[in-house]
Amino acid sequence: MVDARQVPTTSASLADGRTINYYDDVPGGNHSQVDGRDLETMTSVSELRFDPLQDEWVIVASHRQERTHLPPPAECPLCPSTTGQATEIPSPEYDVVVFENRFPSLTAQPANEAGPDLLRVANGVGRCEVICFSSDHETSFSQLSDQRLSTIADSIVDRTRELSTLSGVEYVLVFENRGSEVGVTLHHPHGQIYGYPFIPPKPLRALQAAKRFNATGGGCLFCAVLESEVEDGRRIVAKRDGFVAYVPSAARWPYEVHISPVEHMADLEDLSRGQRLELLRLQADVIAGFDGLFGEPIPYLATLFQAPVAHMRDLAHLRVEVVSPRRAPGKLKYLAASESAAGAFVNDVVPERAAIELRLSLADHSRGGKHA
Amino acid sequence: MVDARQVPTTSASLADGRTINYYDDVPGGNHSQVDGRDLETMTSVSELRFDPLQDEWVIVASHRQERTHLPPPAECPLCPSTTGQATEIPSPEYDVVVFENRFPSLTAQPANEAGPDLLRVANGVGRCEVICFSSDHETSFSQLSDQRLSTIADSIVDRTRELSTLSGVEYVLVFENRGSEVGVTLHHPHGQIYGYPFIPPKPLRALQAAKRFNATGGGCLFCAVLESEVEDGRRIVAKRDGFVAYVPSAARWPYEVHISPVEHMADLEDLSRGQRLELLRLQADVIAGFDGLFGEPIPYLATLFQAPVAHMRDLAHLRVEVVSPRRAPGKLKYLAASESAAGAFVNDVVPERAAIELRLSLADHSRGGKHA
Repeated sequence: MVDARQVPTTSASLADGRTINYYDDVPGGNHSQVDGRDLETMTSVSELRFDPLQDEWVIVASHRQERTHLPPPAECPLCPSTTGQATEIPSPEYDVVVFENRFPSLTAQPANEAGPDLLRVANGVGRCEVICFSSDHETSFSQLSDQRLSTIADSIVDRTRELSTLSGVEYVLVFENRGSEVGVTLHHPHGQIYGYPFIPPKPLRALQAAKRFNATGGGCLFCAVLESEVEDGRRIVAKRDGFVAYVPSAARWPYEVHISPVEHMADLEDLSRGQRLELLRLQADVIAGFDGLFGEPIPYLATLFQAPVAHMRDLAHLRVEVVSPRRAPGKLKYLAASESAAGAFVNDVVPERAAIELRLSLADHSRGGKHA
Repeated sequence: MVDARQVPTTSASLADGRTINYYDDVPGGNHSQVDGRDLETMTSVSELRFDPLQDEWVIVASHRQERTHLPPPAECPLCPSTTGQATEIPSPEYDVVVFENRFPSLTAQPANEAGPDLLRVANGVGRCEVICFSSDHETSFSQLSDQRLSTIADSIVDRTRELSTLSGVEYVLVFENRGSEVGVTLHHPHGQIYGYPFIPPKPLRALQAAKRFNATGGGCLFCAVLESEVEDGRRIVAKRDGFVAYVPSAARWPYEVHISPVEHMADLEDLSRGQRLELLRLQADVIAGFDGLFGEPIPYLATLFQAPVAHMRDLAHLRVEVVSPRRAPGKLKYLAASESAAGAFVNDVVPERAAIELRLSLADHSRGGKHA
C-alpha cells in the first residue's frame, strides 16, 4: 500500500553527511539549497550497558553533553536558513522536515557485544532523527492545520518504514517533548524519532503483559482495556471517528491521556490517510485541552507507540500517550525516590477528576474559546 | 537480637492522633511536651489502581495536592517547636525524630479490592513517615556525626521492624530526596519511610532477576554483580570495612552510586551496629563527594533497599543507591519521553568518568578540603 505522498519530497545531505528529508504539504517545493556550513563531523560515542538487576539496556552517549542548550530565538537551529543565519535546514522554507540529530543517542555502527556477562557492553546501534512540525518558531503541535497533520503522518509512516530497514533497529519511537520543565533544549516545535536496537522496557512490558493475556484466551489486551474504559466511561476525554482518548484508570501523571484506535491496528501504516488525520487531530485537540487547563501552555510528553520492527508485532496495538507533569499552576509532579528509585508512582490528581477537567477544557477549545 | 538502643526514647501522639517517636543520641532526653495545636484530622484518600499494561500498581493520593510547599525557613514544620512557633515536633529539641506524614500517600485502612479485572482498584493501605536527621535546619546528611548516623541506623531498624508488622505492608523503603530540583517541598534535612502494600516495581524486578540467576546456579545475583564490579575496578568510588561504593556499569543517572555490603546481608538489622555505621558513613561520604563535584550541594535521591517483609526475603541483598540528576553546572538530566514514556534511559556521563570524578571529590573531602 505504498502511497506516493509518503515519500519525501526532497532528500538531501547536510554539510557533515547527515541525511535531511523534506515533506511538503503540496509536493513540488524547491529545497535544492546546499548546506554551506563548515561543519565538523561529530564523533559519536554511543554504547549500550546491560543492567543485570533491571534486566534491560541503558544507553550511554557522552558526546551529547556538548549539545546546543536553549539558544536565543535568533540562533534557533531548527528555523529555516536565512542569508545571515545558516541553520540545520538549508532551505529558506519548509513544511515538515526530518534530519539526523547532530547529537544522537544512537548511531550507525557495527553491532557487537563484549564484556563479562553481568557487565555486558554493546555498541549503541540505532538512529536518532529530529522532526520539525513547522518552520514557524512560535506555533505548536496543537495549532497545526489538518493538511499539516496529514503531512506529519505521511512523514512518520515514511520514517518508520525507513528506520525499520536499518541494521540492528528493533523499535521506532516517535515522540515530542515540550517545555523546559521536561528538559527541552530547543523551543522550536519539533519531535524526535528514535530507532532503538531493542524494544524499550515499557512497551516491552506491555507486549509481555499482552502475550500473557492472550495466552489465557483474553484476546488483545489493549482492545480489552479500551473496551473496559469505554464501558466505564468516567475517564473518556474525547472521541473522534474510530478513536478514543481517555485518562487511564491507573494514570501515573497528573494529566495523562491515552489515545487508541477502536479497531485493532498495529501502527500508523495500518491506518488509512483519513484515519491517520483523525488520530493526529485528536492528539492535537488533547494537547489544546492540556493548554487550556491552567490558561497557559504546559509541559508535556507525547509518544507514539507502534508495533516493533519484527518481534511481537502481532500483539501490538497503536497508542499515543500524552502526559504532563504539571499538577497545579506553578507546581510540577517530580519523579523522586518512590518513582525513580523504586518505580512506585504516586499520582496526586484523581484520574476521574483529570478527565472532567480535560473534557471541560476541550469543550472550551472546540467552542473557539480563549484557547482557539 | 533486640538492642535496647533501637527502641525509641519517647513515643507520643500529635494533636491529630499521629504517632511521633524520638530517638536520642544519648538516652534520657525529655520529650514530654504536648502538641497543643488545634489540628484538624486529615481525611486521607489513598487508593491503588492496577495498570494492566505495565502489570503494576499506581498510588492515587489526591489529598496530597494541599501539602505544605516550600514554606519560609521561619515556618519550617520540621524544626523543633519554639514558644512562638508550634511545628510538627512538639519538643523544643531533638536528635532524630520520626512521625507519621500529615499528607500520606498510603494510610491505615482495611485491605479491599474492587472493580473489573482490568480496572482493579484497591485501598491504599500502608504507612508514610517522615524522619528528621537533625534539629539543625541548615545541616545535611553528609555533615552528620558518627553518633548521629548510629542513631539514624537504630531508628531505621526500629521503624522497619515496626512497619513490617502493620497489616498489609509488604515492603519498607527508606529514602531521602534532597533539592527543589527533585521536587522537595521542605528543605529541613529529612528522609521518608514508606510501608508499601506491594513490593515496588524496581526492587521487585531486581528480585525476579535474582531468582532467575539463582535458578541457573549462579548464587546471589547482587553478590555476583558486586564481585564483577570489584574485579573490574574502574568504577569503584570508595571502600570502607566490608562495604563497597561503585558506579554501576549501566548507570542511568549522570552520577549514580550503589553501596553494598560485601557479605550477603538482607537488611540493616542483619548488620552489627558497627557495620551499620560503616554503611551510613560511606553513604554520607558519597553524598559529600557529590557535593564536591561542582562546588555546591547538588540535588540527590538516596534510597535504602532492604529485603521485603515476607516474600523473596532470601533473595535480597541490602543496597543503598545515591543518584543525582545534575549532569553539569546549571544543567539537569531530565526524564523525557525516552525514559519516562518508553523506559529507555540515555545517560550523558560515562560511568567510568563519573567514578573518577567522584573518587577525586571524595579524596578532596577526606583531606579536609574545601567541602569538609
